[in-house]
Amino acid sequence: MPGERKRVGMVVRLRPELVDEYVERHKAVWPEVRSALRKVGVRNLSLFLSGDLVFMYMEYGGKRPFAEAMAEYVKLPRVAEWEDQMKRYKQVAGGASAETGFSEAREIYHMD
Amino acid sequence: MPGERKRVGMVVRLRPELVDEYVERHKAVWPEVRSALRKVGVRNLSLFLSGDLVFMYMEYGGKRPFAEAMAEYVKLPRVAEWEDQMKRYKQVAGGASAETGFSEAREIYHMD
Repeated sequence: MPGERKRVGMVVRLRPELVDEYVERHKAVWPEVRSALRKVGVRNLSLFLSGDLVFMYMEYGGKRPFAEAMAEYVKLPRVAEWEDQMKRYKQVAGGASAETGFSEAREIYHMD
Repeated sequence: MPGERKRVGMVVRLRPELVDEYVERHKAVWPEVRSALRKVGVRNLSLFLSGDLVFMYMEYGGKRPFAEAMAEYVKLPRVAEWEDQMKRYKQVAGGASAETGFSEAREIYHMD
């Protein structure tokens, strides 16, 4: 992994009654969403589920600040539509990203 | 990243009054713990904090099942002592690892 990559951790709580449907939807993430993530510099992205809690890990290798990359991401084709649909499954907390509903977590340890 | 690596996500809730101390302790993880993780095949491990929730992401490249690697990990020098100390900060849930207090999460999406 190149040293300049930023590791990003994000978290969101799902509506308990919609967890299964959220999982199903992620078996068929739209190709445009995947392309958009890669286009703005995101790699090695994983989503994990524990109860009704989802956390996301990704690596960001772009030159711009991460927030700018995310702002571009949501403007790419079909992304806003996907994210709007995904927001229905989420209990969005204060301080969460308006676009994705995820809250950024703080990295407190790393070992290569 | 070699294709054979397994991605592992784990989660644990901290005792709210001990969050700051847990963060401090992770500024000085014992070198033996780091060596033990690497010895059993763990790479690219990150811990993230969101409120009193900690989630861990790591990549496991060993040939044995991951559970066997973890069983060896806790037997390596000073590891059990470190993990015992860390358990004090955690609200260990049912189904969590007896050794580390973390519960394994389920990967529901991945994009290279």
